[in-house]
Amino acid sequence: MRPNSVKLLWSQNKTASCGWVSCDSPLIAETMGQSGLDAVVVDMQHGMTDLQSLPAMLTALATTAATPFVRLASGAPAEVMKALDAGTYGLICPLVNTAEQAEAFVASASYPPRGGRSFGPFRAKYYAGDGYLEHANDTIVTMAMIETSEGFQNLEAILAVEGLDAVFVGPADLALNFGYPPGPEQAYEPLEQAMATILEQSHKVDKHVGIFCSNGAGAALRKSQGFDLVVPSNDTYALARLLNADIGLINGA
Amino acid sequence: MRPNSVKLLWSQNKTASCGWVSCDSPLIAETMGQSGLDAVVVDMQHGMTDLQSLPAMLTALATTAATPFVRLASGAPAEVMKALDAGTYGLICPLVNTAEQAEAFVASASYPPRGGRSFGPFRAKYYAGDGYLEHANDTIVTMAMIETSEGFQNLEAILAVEGLDAVFVGPADLALNFGYPPGPEQAYEPLEQAMATILEQSHKVDKHVGIFCSNGAGAALRKSQGFDLVVPSNDTYALARLLNADIGLINGA
Amino acid sequence: MRPNSVKLLWSQNKTASCGWVSCDSPLIAETMGQSGLDAVVVDMQHGMTDLQSLPAMLTALATTAATPFVRLASGAPAEVMKALDAGTYGLICPLVNTAEQAEAFVASASYPPRGGRSFGPFRAKYYAGDGYLEHANDTIVTMAMIETSEGFQNLEAILAVEGLDAVFVGPADLALNFGYPPGPEQAYEPLEQAMATILEQSHKVDKHVGIFCSNGAGAALRKSQGFDLVVPSNDTYALARLLNADIGLINGA
Amino acid sequence: MRPNSVKLLWSQNKTASCGWVSCDSPLIAETMGQSGLDAVVVDMQHGMTDLQSLPAMLTALATTAATPFVRLASGAPAEVMKALDAGTYGLICPLVNTAEQAEAFVASASYPPRGGRSFGPFRAKYYAGDGYLEHANDTIVTMAMIETSEGFQNLEAILAVEGLDAVFVGPADLALNFGYPPGPEQAYEPLEQAMATILEQSHKVDKHVGIFCSNGAGAALRKSQGFDLVVPSNDTYALARLLNADIGLINGA
Amino acid sequence: MRPNSVKLLWSQNKTASCGWVSCDSPLIAETMGQSGLDAVVVDMQHGMTDLQSLPAMLTALATTAATPFVRLASGAPAEVMKALDAGTYGLICPLVNTAEQAEAFVASASYPPRGGRSFGPFRAKYYAGDGYLEHANDTIVTMAMIETSEGFQNLEAILAVEGLDAVFVGPADLALNFGYPPGPEQAYEPLEQAMATILEQSHKVDKHVGIFCSNGAGAALRKSQGFDLVVPSNDTYALARLLNADIGLINGA
Amino acid sequence: MRPNSVKLLWSQNKTASCGWVSCDSPLIAETMGQSGLDAVVVDMQHGMTDLQSLPAMLTALATTAATPFVRLASGAPAEVMKALDAGTYGLICPLVNTAEQAEAFVASASYPPRGGRSFGPFRAKYYAGDGYLEHANDTIVTMAMIETSEGFQNLEAILAVEGLDAVFVGPADLALNFGYPPGPEQAYEPLEQAMATILEQSHKVDKHVGIFCSNGAGAALRKSQGFDLVVPSNDTYALARLLNADIGLINGA
Repeated sequence: MRPNSVKLLWSQNKTASCGWVSCDSPLIAETMGQSGLDAVVVDMQHGMTDLQSLPAMLTALATTAATPFVRLASGAPAEVMKALDAGTYGLICPLVNTAEQAEAFVASASYPPRGGRSFGPFRAKYYAGDGYLEHANDTIVTMAMIETSEGFQNLEAILAVEGLDAVFVGPADLALNFGYPPGPEQAYEPLEQAMATILEQSHKVDKHVGIFCSNGAGAALRKSQGFDLVVPSNDTYALARLLNADIGLINGA
Repeated sequence: MRPNSVKLLWSQNKTASCGWVSCDSPLIAETMGQSGLDAVVVDMQHGMTDLQSLPAMLTALATTAATPFVRLASGAPAEVMKALDAGTYGLICPLVNTAEQAEAFVASASYPPRGGRSFGPFRAKYYAGDGYLEHANDTIVTMAMIETSEGFQNLEAILAVEGLDAVFVGPADLALNFGYPPGPEQAYEPLEQAMATILEQSHKVDKHVGIFCSNGAGAALRKSQGFDLVVPSNDTYALARLLNADIGLINGA
Repeated sequence: MRPNSVKLLWSQNKTASCGWVSCDSPLIAETMGQSGLDAVVVDMQHGMTDLQSLPAMLTALATTAATPFVRLASGAPAEVMKALDAGTYGLICPLVNTAEQAEAFVASASYPPRGGRSFGPFRAKYYAGDGYLEHANDTIVTMAMIETSEGFQNLEAILAVEGLDAVFVGPADLALNFGYPPGPEQAYEPLEQAMATILEQSHKVDKHVGIFCSNGAGAALRKSQGFDLVVPSNDTYALARLLNADIGLINGA
Repeated sequence: MRPNSVKLLWSQNKTASCGWVSCDSPLIAETMGQSGLDAVVVDMQHGMTDLQSLPAMLTALATTAATPFVRLASGAPAEVMKALDAGTYGLICPLVNTAEQAEAFVASASYPPRGGRSFGPFRAKYYAGDGYLEHANDTIVTMAMIETSEGFQNLEAILAVEGLDAVFVGPADLALNFGYPPGPEQAYEPLEQAMATILEQSHKVDKHVGIFCSNGAGAALRKSQGFDLVVPSNDTYALARLLNADIGLINGA
Repeated sequence: MRPNSVKLLWSQNKTASCGWVSCDSPLIAETMGQSGLDAVVVDMQHGMTDLQSLPAMLTALATTAATPFVRLASGAPAEVMKALDAGTYGLICPLVNTAEQAEAFVASASYPPRGGRSFGPFRAKYYAGDGYLEHANDTIVTMAMIETSEGFQNLEAILAVEGLDAVFVGPADLALNFGYPPGPEQAYEPLEQAMATILEQSHKVDKHVGIFCSNGAGAALRKSQGFDLVVPSNDTYALARLLNADIGLINGA
Repeated sequence: MRPNSVKLLWSQNKTASCGWVSCDSPLIAETMGQSGLDAVVVDMQHGMTDLQSLPAMLTALATTAATPFVRLASGAPAEVMKALDAGTYGLICPLVNTAEQAEAFVASASYPPRGGRSFGPFRAKYYAGDGYLEHANDTIVTMAMIETSEGFQNLEAILAVEGLDAVFVGPADLALNFGYPPGPEQAYEPLEQAMATILEQSHKVDKHVGIFCSNGAGAALRKSQGFDLVVPSNDTYALARLLNADIGLINGA
């Protein structure tokens, strides 16, 4: 089975750079995959991709060196299984508030005996090559989002879930739960402290931590803080920022 | 009928800033349209959009203040008419080499008696509001691309075509026809001279000139040179450049 | 943030007229939106639209003056949140039988601290303009369908749910639950009495009531009875009725 | 091979009623096909359907008793052949101005030796059943649109084209070519006279005539005048008219 | 209402042959439906079809003599109801482990008073014809998949669920739950014994049994064993096997 | 630039095996690409793929070792260029009857100075890697279909067109032009002689010959006769044949 580049990087104590696609254009996914990023997330929660268009997005990423990840909309078992069958190598489950939710997520993502994933990985086998059934459970990355007060309070129990590889910090939702509007890196000290706690507790039990960032500089900051997977914004935010700068140049001419 | 913002700007001797969408994602089109650009081109020639997805792209732009333009794949009459019926306010016809081709293009884009456009503007009327039949010929911008040696040689005749509003310079193809690989602004002096000629001859006969640029700085340069519509790159090029910079920041951390 | 026309009408004690799209054609949605209706519902429960095509439908409506509503398929949190992120200004949740279900629905549709909606309103912000985070909870209309015997029995408790703006009567399902086949307005006296009860109890606690009607005359009747939002049938029923009449005229010629 | 209901009706000197779909929703096509109309046209010229979505539209019609027709965008040979392979039983070619154009259209629509249609009718054979190769040329209806002054002047020559079954009158474009804005039936006497001429000359040489009408009453009028195929408006016009009436009823309540 | 061919065959103690579509191409569905199979399953669990594309798949099948079945992704009520509204005549619910799950599945698939299915069968009525409301509950086949150890242990209780027509054996998942990798027919004796038990217990209480098979020979074997619905593999497995054989022939030439 | 596997095989005097996709399902394309075939043709002429879905098909093939080819619908310059920009490595142009048509086809497929292809290979560069502009003309295979009497008569002139790599025999259309219904290999001696002539004349001038075959055995036969690229039927024909055999086995059980 094709190895998971993110797991390889983590085994070498390296940080993975990771793109994030919010539109449902395979060309944009392929452009991100061609850029040199280690992985690319297709966002089914807040992005335009749903289960119908997910295979096209993952197929586009499969033409590139970037490892295809998916942020789920819900973590419902049928969604987890369809996302995996479509060829996902990493799953980010949103709004994980309890260890029970994390366990259910991992169980849906794992073949028996570890879990209850049903067998039929049509596209996944094309991407993975031989040995998918034997190696899928250990190759695919499972990440639980810590983005609510409840999830933060249950962090230790969530981190103790066997088979969960990592947590992913959602700074915007975590800020809202802490009573702040979403902001850039280092906007709110209590939020930064919470993130440091998440990083420390996770690393203590050999779990990894990913995080969404405002831009490339934000991602560089998070990498320097020790985060294991950093996302330098997404397609639409990045494009809007760039266009804003371009228009400034044009207007100034 | 809703006025054409690009024509208004031109009537005030102002330069229009114009986005360019190569993928076929309505969300990316809407993001561009929301950015403050004066117009956005949906590229049917080298981009992913075909006639089937064009209405969705133009509908996305219609929610914004940006005026919806289309670069055609061929200028075939049926393509011209379908693009207009879908709600386009500006057409860029590629590979116009002769005045006859420019005349045929304008005729396809114009209702009788000026041309032979067939009547049935379903989406177009929704976008334009009342008076479409009466005002469409004079509201919609028609642009002929000058991007081959033959087109450049026939420039004067092309500019003389009644009803043609402007020409659009395709620097990459014009470079290839001059014997150079595509390059950034000011890469090749003979090419720059040709562009200056196009600008001068067009303005002499009160026609406008648009141009595709490498980035925001290139667009600012072209505006300062007098071009009437400047395109600061497209979605995928811009995103690739930005990701390249982001990865550099992350790798350096 | 762009105001919600339906809420404005309700604040003036006026009845909103509302279209209903069962196919998943953006052109049909845009046609409805252009007609002068105050709002248009995209039906994800019995109609052809699913989460994949919802953004295209809402984008089409966003080009018009009609406020975009959605009837959900289930009220599952992930569905509620994706429908809102896609730019919905009103949600109709089907099969609400208990106050707990109504509470969960409102919570999924509300940002903290009122609820647990996750933040990432890509298209929604384009439609709404500035201030989405601050005003979304109070701008978006939430409606719970009363269409089963259980829901009717729990009406008082459902109406007491904080943050719920209105109930929506589904006459066909309510008829089935009362033991009747679906019929036109005033077909069954006990059903009419139940609807009168719903209207009275709702208005008593300052909640509004919407209702699906057989046609324009039925909608006029319901408006005269005091309903706050009336739907004069949907696209396919209306078209079938009209074609039936047209064929009669042709056959008679 | 499944017979063509329109040809059967014509052989009995009866008029065919025919729907017209401008959106690209298969559900709307199926709704039209279920209504009792003899045939339904999918409009690729001014409608939203392009070659990519045409098979879905024709498949929807194939579930009904209505015979699937297509109005082409251009009559280009590749378009004619793809529309036929997708399962069309009748073709309406727009903007036929000369006998040469009509001949080329019929040749593209006919297998050798009558024409040059290439063989590969995947969906068409499913719809038609056995004997497609042998009977397609004689079963499929070919109609040339008479909608320009030039076409009207060349009517006799166009009608003389062997293998052409009928002409189709486009009243809106013909009006524009006569110098009038598009209007309802009987709006312009010279236009009515031209139509009477088309009808008379066609019937004289045993060719049939179809026509687009404003509504059911207009279609009934055209039937009474002797037209062989009448179209009582299309989906979006009909829906807009109906909604206008519905809103009037609601506002009046 | 159009009768269900599978129910008719079962009433005659005959075995139904059933295709299985894993891609989401309507042309492949139509090809299967045209082949002479009694029914065709559109697979929403491991296949590419989701609720968005399901109507197109069922419409394609509706042009053929094969009865349209669907394998659900989850059995969630909203999914069950949308699949039925889209025109399904048979539902296969995956991962049914308990009688409660089977009861909920049947309830979602049944109109009141037997269940809580909501009324709005747009496409379904087109396919079924008159009398849908009255006859749908008794016409549509409901099948619960027995594919886990828990499901197998609860077989008797599941078979006792009123309104459930049949069970469907998923050999691959059942094998995994028994500790074997998925294999062909007769690979594992304990698995064969379990299947024999399922067949015997089901027939004892007049319920039917369907099964997925490796190929045509496997399906013939299962028919000879008494299974009531046999599936000779799916589209992609079948095509891969055939291409493998073709390449062998070419390489040997 | 990534080399073209078919050109490599031809340089070694080997025959390429080539799949053929008539539906527009990326999963079916990927299944074919995974099978071990040297190349796969996406059929835009008689198949379901149009320019809108072509990028998805070529993206699916780009995940596999099979080289992506396209059969065009027409050979119109805009179609040729869009197919190439989408990432095609081989083009089959239908209905080439004259050397002029072959020349125009090759010119559209070639960058200046050899031809007039416009520059903008978004997806193509992702697939090809560095050096696309320099090497595309020599890497991409151009094939002209010989399938009419006129084309056969002009064979020598067509083969003399510089830059044309090969011809492709369409046995079904060639049969029709010779007065026969389409049949299997060796059905008609005059047709076989014509094919032998095409093979001999082509090889004499170092051009290659491809051919569509009935099945794997037919492809093996054509390979043994010296054809350079053989197609063992397509997806839908193959599936229909296999289902026919499966049903025979089931019925016999």
